[in-house]
Amino acid sequence: MRVIFLVLMVCSAFFPFSVAEPRPLSLMPLPSNVQMKTGQLVIDPSFTVGISGASEAHLRRSAELFLDNLRRQTGMTALDMKVTDSAHARLVVRSEGSSKDVQELGEDESYSLDISSAGATLDAATPLGIMRGLQTFLQLVQTTSDGFAAPAVAIQDKPRFPWRGLMIDVSRHFIPLDVLKRNLDGMAAVKMNVFHWHLSDDQGFRVESKKFPTLQEMGSDGLFYTQAEVRELIAYARDRGIRIVPEFDMPGHSTAWFVGYPELASGPGPYQIERKWGVFDPAMDPTEERTYKFLDGFIGEMAKLFPERYFHIGGDEVNGKEWDANAKIQAFMHAHGLKSNQDLQAYFNTRVQKIVSKHGKIMVGWDEILRPDLPKDIVVQSWRGQDSLAAAAKQGYRGLLSFGYYVDLNWPALQHYAVDPMSGAAANLSPEEKRRILGGEACMWSEYVSPENIDSRLWPRTAAIAERLWSAQDVMEVNSMYERLEVVSRWLDWLGLTHNSSYGPMLRRIAGSDDISALRTFTDVVEPVKDYTREEIAAVEATSLSPLNRVIDAARPESETARRFADLVDALIAGRADSAAKQEVRACLTRWRDNQSNLQALVTQSFLLKEIVPVSQDLSAVAASGLQALDYIDRGERAPDAWATQQFALLQEAEKPKAQLLLMVAPAVQKLVETSSGQKAPAPPK
Amino acid sequence: MRVIFLVLMVCSAFFPFSVAEPRPLSLMPLPSNVQMKTGQLVIDPSFTVGISGASEAHLRRSAELFLDNLRRQTGMTALDMKVTDSAHARLVVRSEGSSKDVQELGEDESYSLDISSAGATLDAATPLGIMRGLQTFLQLVQTTSDGFAAPAVAIQDKPRFPWRGLMIDVSRHFIPLDVLKRNLDGMAAVKMNVFHWHLSDDQGFRVESKKFPTLQEMGSDGLFYTQAEVRELIAYARDRGIRIVPEFDMPGHSTAWFVGYPELASGPGPYQIERKWGVFDPAMDPTEERTYKFLDGFIGEMAKLFPERYFHIGGDEVNGKEWDANAKIQAFMHAHGLKSNQDLQAYFNTRVQKIVSKHGKIMVGWDEILRPDLPKDIVVQSWRGQDSLAAAAKQGYRGLLSFGYYVDLNWPALQHYAVDPMSGAAANLSPEEKRRILGGEACMWSEYVSPENIDSRLWPRTAAIAERLWSAQDVMEVNSMYERLEVVSRWLDWLGLTHNSSYGPMLRRIAGSDDISALRTFTDVVEPVKDYTREEIAAVEATSLSPLNRVIDAARPESETARRFADLVDALIAGRADSAAKQEVRACLTRWRDNQSNLQALVTQSFLLKEIVPVSQDLSAVAASGLQALDYIDRGERAPDAWATQQFALLQEAEKPKAQLLLMVAPAVQKLVETSSGQKAPAPPK
Repeated sequence: MRVIFLVLMVCSAFFPFSVAEPRPLSLMPLPSNVQMKTGQLVIDPSFTVGISGASEAHLRRSAELFLDNLRRQTGMTALDMKVTDSAHARLVVRSEGSSKDVQELGEDESYSLDISSAGATLDAATPLGIMRGLQTFLQLVQTTSDGFAAPAVAIQDKPRFPWRGLMIDVSRHFIPLDVLKRNLDGMAAVKMNVFHWHLSDDQGFRVESKKFPTLQEMGSDGLFYTQAEVRELIAYARDRGIRIVPEFDMPGHSTAWFVGYPELASGPGPYQIERKWGVFDPAMDPTEERTYKFLDGFIGEMAKLFPERYFHIGGDEVNGKEWDANAKIQAFMHAHGLKSNQDLQAYFNTRVQKIVSKHGKIMVGWDEILRPDLPKDIVVQSWRGQDSLAAAAKQGYRGLLSFGYYVDLNWPALQHYAVDPMSGAAANLSPEEKRRILGGEACMWSEYVSPENIDSRLWPRTAAIAERLWSAQDVMEVNSMYERLEVVSRWLDWLGLTHNSSYGPMLRRIAGSDDISALRTFTDVVEPVKDYTREEIAAVEATSLSPLNRVIDAARPESETARRFADLVDALIAGRADSAAKQEVRACLTRWRDNQSNLQALVTQSFLLKEIVPVSQDLSAVAASGLQALDYIDRGERAPDAWATQQFALLQEAEKPKAQLLLMVAPAVQKLVETSSGQKAPAPPK
Repeated sequence: MRVIFLVLMVCSAFFPFSVAEPRPLSLMPLPSNVQMKTGQLVIDPSFTVGISGASEAHLRRSAELFLDNLRRQTGMTALDMKVTDSAHARLVVRSEGSSKDVQELGEDESYSLDISSAGATLDAATPLGIMRGLQTFLQLVQTTSDGFAAPAVAIQDKPRFPWRGLMIDVSRHFIPLDVLKRNLDGMAAVKMNVFHWHLSDDQGFRVESKKFPTLQEMGSDGLFYTQAEVRELIAYARDRGIRIVPEFDMPGHSTAWFVGYPELASGPGPYQIERKWGVFDPAMDPTEERTYKFLDGFIGEMAKLFPERYFHIGGDEVNGKEWDANAKIQAFMHAHGLKSNQDLQAYFNTRVQKIVSKHGKIMVGWDEILRPDLPKDIVVQSWRGQDSLAAAAKQGYRGLLSFGYYVDLNWPALQHYAVDPMSGAAANLSPEEKRRILGGEACMWSEYVSPENIDSRLWPRTAAIAERLWSAQDVMEVNSMYERLEVVSRWLDWLGLTHNSSYGPMLRRIAGSDDISALRTFTDVVEPVKDYTREEIAAVEATSLSPLNRVIDAARPESETARRFADLVDALIAGRADSAAKQEVRACLTRWRDNQSNLQALVTQSFLLKEIVPVSQDLSAVAASGLQALDYIDRGERAPDAWATQQFALLQEAEKPKAQLLLMVAPAVQKLVETSSGQKAPAPPK
């Protein structure tokens, strides 16, 4: 019933419905074990949290943050909702152990939460487990007929993987501290526990070094975090049970370092901050001792600034061109028996690993760093896939999966959700080897994100990855995932995330008008092109100077409307659709068919609308085609072959990206045409 | 054309329209002098601001803030948009004079802005004038067919009054620093220049005193600003050309002081932080020297913390009961020939004024402080009205108007807009006396606001008050004001103000569902009751512990939908409505009539919806009545008297507040019934 009700809202704003049955729990990530009980715990302004047993600062702070969130979520500003030491509180929290000075990989995050109509208890081995359990409690709180309430339930829960991360690249576009903070709130809400901060790359060096201030002075356009801000974010993350792993990419992806310190590079210089996207030639000179002396000083400084035990040195995508072109480097390689650039990079990594280790840290790097001469305590982050991860595990190395979790590629949530760190070759590892697979990280590379739209590129899809890394491997039902994802998406609004709220203002800017109904109807059914297609088909090469204010920047990575419409069409074709669902399909198609004429009226007033006219015309034509197909189906009449051939050609044309956008309702309309004509659409040309 | 286009969007989401003509300027406050020229200045990612002549820190900071806002508004993250010293910039800014160390009352804020297709120049006597002119520039930037652009225009502008303030009470509900910051951004956007910070009252003492820390420790529930935060906000305001005037209300409205320092009070104590709303008995003891010693220490500390020259001591609403009940105080009054509590308060004020003056400050207070024995440099803030202000001016005192500007009373914008500081008795003052009227302040008393909804109680209506205080007295065309107010409201979204964005999430919480279409349709046409009615008709007395999450807390103080609907109905009755407008009236009424059945389906799942059912039923009945009236009108048939009598009774009932809400479309429907029947509705019973 719930599914159909949601589906029915795709296009009709005022469809009468009924919601009699109790709402299902919308927990994400799904806990290991949930037993529903009878009754519910009412949350009123006198709600209190009691800390039983040892009350340490982290525990108390967690309880206070929990109450802040609860107040926001319920709109109760109540001063009486507070943390007490008493065991008579409505929610009693008890942690067996206490917090480590610095949060560590692999700390116990399990918890058990028991809620009855009289009160609730939350038990955990550590304050981290308490934090995870408090998030579950918040997800349980609903508006009910008797007040805000959490249903009576018993939950035992623990994570599948100990490393559940999100990487944000703050180099290609600088992301201000407050934006990072709200996204850390989002991470904590879905129980992620590592923020991987990609702090330097060709396009910018983003941390203040007091030892080498020219790094940020010349390498950042003035856009960097002070050390005080770094400490502020680390404390903020710590309060939320999140470790911050810094990454300084080397020896490649390092142009921004060389603007101030050209002597570190392998080429002649001078260097400028890179404005373009891609893989570039500049690389550190691995043959000069001054390089290691500098890195020793720099890593030493950063090792103090970041208390975290793991330290990421990047190590990806060195194209070797500067090394090839440098006779002195070639001579060094020859003299040391280094046969390839890979060998040279391995030499560099070994040297850097010693420095990292000297400063008390464990090195992390991308796939390319893996060479058998490195010590076994390093961690490999794989953008190549599970097989690469399995190979590392077999050699005794620990690894993280990021292949399949690149959220900047605009994949639908189900595509990320289907990627499991333990699949492929990893599925066949021994138990010991499997334990070396620590988890994974969603990655947000920032070529096309700004403070305004980064949230909408991260959320809610990142929650699906969080579930993959927290919940049991067999939690994989896609419909359930999407249902819960939508609820979580709205819940994240309370944390100040802007993935929903920025949509309207961006569309108003594009329209140059407050009347955005036609533009919204359009943008609701398109998606940005996937993978690296945006770059590949760009009319003008994008750089870090390009505005991010087009329809492609406002459009959601995954169209909820198109997904729901496709579900409706599937139901209709399968004969599972009732008359309301059929009406809804017709209402959608009618609205889309007529939308172009509404949109056209706006086009004269905005330069940002011009590029979407062909796509809007396609939408109109596709919808008209769908309506005709529906007429044939309704009349029980077989559509003529010639008509179907014509529609397939039209649909094939409409499925080609235009304005770097994909029209997401075309495939469902194609199914309607197929059904009405009894013909299969021809395969698209390669 | 524009008006009709906007009006047509009241209920129909997909009404086809055309927008051929150029959009009018939507400046608010309206400048003194605007001359349109031909062409426009395109704003692209290479836009720069040059500072010509002396470039001081405040000027540079203003230009940087301007570019930040421009980037946000246009979505151009462009690194090339920067402040240069060159005179070759697209916008050249030139200030004759430099900034004062501390911003002063009466500094020249005039500016002239000249924009052509080749570039723009902004000249002013002071950096403050530059700030005002930069805001005008931002308001001019629109999305056009050729890119973002400001129209070619020449503007000379200056404020009518030198004191254009907003008071926010942070005692009754604590308002966190970030919320104040975004509201200071809003103030700067509409050229307001004084933030009056009501920092203490019966319900909370909100500033850290290092000298008397028990003030905040016992008087704030832990909700106060540290001195570092106060300094941070002062700097933030200074960057935006806003003075911060602190208010510490005394000798009444001071219960929160006495929790930690009962010896200051006139009663026996002990005292607790007040949770209720109203006027309470506790008052400082004006007869004890220790009171003045304490105040000397405290005011001395605050005088250092706040660099601002003016210092507000409140002074309002002393009910005198503690004085009456204290024999020692009565004896003192007798001994000193003080005949009334007013005399005693005057004695107190005279003593306090000397302390304030000793610490280098000029005293400000509410109406009640005015007594001829106070020095002429004090400033009186009038909540009583223009006559009171005029009386003060005649006695040589300077004054500010706040009567008519209480935005917490939920008046429509036009009601505030009609209040002029120079009307009533003030209109007849001599020029010299008139100069003593410094301006006015919008006031936000915070009984019913939280961080979540304070923005929606302030904006956009406060912009209408800002215009009253900045623009010429004869700028008073209400339709123009509303048209511009709507544009400004959306523009304020770019500053992060939440008056628009918080509406949806609040409604979703109330509905306990993501499907809020019926609830939104309902809430769009209701308003909170006005003035102090919320308290007067409350079923349960509200306190500072009461949640602010009801429909009354989400509903806007002024319903845009109801206002537009009323305009449409007026046009229809006057025979000015075209067929599209007539259709729109019918579409609205049909939607409202059918809304209750949609809403009813939600009611079972949320306790917050129960109270609105009777109002929703009224809406349905009123809309049905309107549709019938429309049918009679359309058929050219006179509605029967008996029917009309019945409808008038129904409408009268529907106009009574329920759930503390007013149904705002009832009056327009009443007009339709009157027109259809040729009858006048009976006057409502007193």
